[in-house]
Amino acid sequence: MRLDSMSVSVVGLGLVGGSIARALKRAGVEAVYGIDVDSDVLLIAEADGAIARGYEDPAEPLAESDLVFLCLKPDDLVAFARDNASSFKEGALLTDTAGVRRGLNARVAAVLRKDLRFVGGHPMAGKEDQGYRNSDPDIFRGASYILTPSPSCGRADVEFVAGVARALGCDAVKETDEDTHDRMIAYTSHLPHVAAAAMVLDPLVLEAKGFSGGSFRDATRVARINPGLWTELLLANADEFLPALGRFRAALDSLGSAIESGDRDALYRLLSEARRMNEGKHGTR
Amino acid sequence: MRLDSMSVSVVGLGLVGGSIARALKRAGVEAVYGIDVDSDVLLIAEADGAIARGYEDPAEPLAESDLVFLCLKPDDLVAFARDNASSFKEGALLTDTAGVRRGLNARVAAVLRKDLRFVGGHPMAGKEDQGYRNSDPDIFRGASYILTPSPSCGRADVEFVAGVARALGCDAVKETDEDTHDRMIAYTSHLPHVAAAAMVLDPLVLEAKGFSGGSFRDATRVARINPGLWTELLLANADEFLPALGRFRAALDSLGSAIESGDRDALYRLLSEARRMNEGKHGTR
Repeated sequence: MRLDSMSVSVVGLGLVGGSIARALKRAGVEAVYGIDVDSDVLLIAEADGAIARGYEDPAEPLAESDLVFLCLKPDDLVAFARDNASSFKEGALLTDTAGVRRGLNARVAAVLRKDLRFVGGHPMAGKEDQGYRNSDPDIFRGASYILTPSPSCGRADVEFVAGVARALGCDAVKETDEDTHDRMIAYTSHLPHVAAAAMVLDPLVLEAKGFSGGSFRDATRVARINPGLWTELLLANADEFLPALGRFRAALDSLGSAIESGDRDALYRLLSEARRMNEGKHGTR
Repeated sequence: MRLDSMSVSVVGLGLVGGSIARALKRAGVEAVYGIDVDSDVLLIAEADGAIARGYEDPAEPLAESDLVFLCLKPDDLVAFARDNASSFKEGALLTDTAGVRRGLNARVAAVLRKDLRFVGGHPMAGKEDQGYRNSDPDIFRGASYILTPSPSCGRADVEFVAGVARALGCDAVKETDEDTHDRMIAYTSHLPHVAAAAMVLDPLVLEAKGFSGGSFRDATRVARINPGLWTELLLANADEFLPALGRFRAALDSLGSAIESGDRDALYRLLSEARRMNEGKHGTR
């Protein structure tokens, strides 16, 4: 079945859900339904043309939808899948956008009807400003999309969601298991955000104007953090984040010790090693 | 006197010196002389049109130059000013480009003829790849230029070098004292570089492809570090760098402790404070 001839429901028209609805519309999907508890958001999304129609009651759109995007927090998406178990169209494919994955496949499987399949997904795209009003189909352009397929789905389901990810604008789709996802994201996303936050928690930041260049701008860009969202993400992924933070602090300690002791050779070796390791990330997004 | 009717010598045609020569040429300065110990670099720079003429022996160009850019390491530029003291044109203005400033005004003053003035300067521009072959007049576009004037120079001299900085393409000129420069640069430049190096000193960097987005790309961009250059910079500025690193580690510890203890309120407060502090850097470069 082709995406553009499908009916798709997007559950939760926040930043990510709203952006997905807009990107699906742009990709040619005619029947994009929006489901949200906020009737104002539904009216605005309808007026924008982001969705064909909005619903507070999910029963009607779910009964028609071949594909359902659950753009909710993990607890909420599991509850939604459970509470609306009888409403999904027979054989529908479900996917989601949660940024921390551990245990989600099992939790969804526990509440899902046997004819339904769930392909967990995490688009590596976002903005610090949340909500439908900040939604933008362009956030997916050039981004990576990570899939953590559940045992309920087959190869064709995974390939289909990978195709949807590309239709949204993503240019890399990575398939992995939930634990690997959380361990890698702790390092590649959660650590840079915490490092940026820590860097601006310094009184000198208020005097930085005129003293800073590209390195400071880049190092602190994501310090423009959404505190509520990131409190949840970091606590949900604490088991993987804390080791990543520990490795980062150990590396800072090694560099700091070499500088403090004036050990030119040790410092040169560490910086050379950093440059060499950095080459290894080439081609990353 | 107008810059474009002046004779200017650039001493040391490395990345920064070469870039300054090219940018001066582009700004309409006819007589840009290059002084370097490497005759090949002089020939290439002449062939490029970056300099009107190159000299291994500084006596002749210095005798004609109203403005001299010393684009050498601190020890080398002090030695150059001392060894060529008798060659400078009467009343010439000297400036430099060193990235760590403490003590430089006093050291230059100790070897400078009384009719000469020295305006210390640090263009916040560069690349990780050094040498004349990587020089590029565009590295100054939109960058900050910091001046640390010495007691030998007057208001007009400082204003003149500020004008030269703008002619190079810089859009912000900041005037400060040497100690403040080194303290701020430790935080705004040296810390982001060390943090980026520390972040890639993690085995997971080699698996990051497909798992990373803009935050990781930005956080690790300057890990493509020049180990020789940065070993010198960090050791030269250790007294200011180590306290900046200490504050960063303390902030990481606070964030890590809040996450480890599952203290939702403390984590939310720290991230909110980071976002608020980050607003304070607005308008920085």
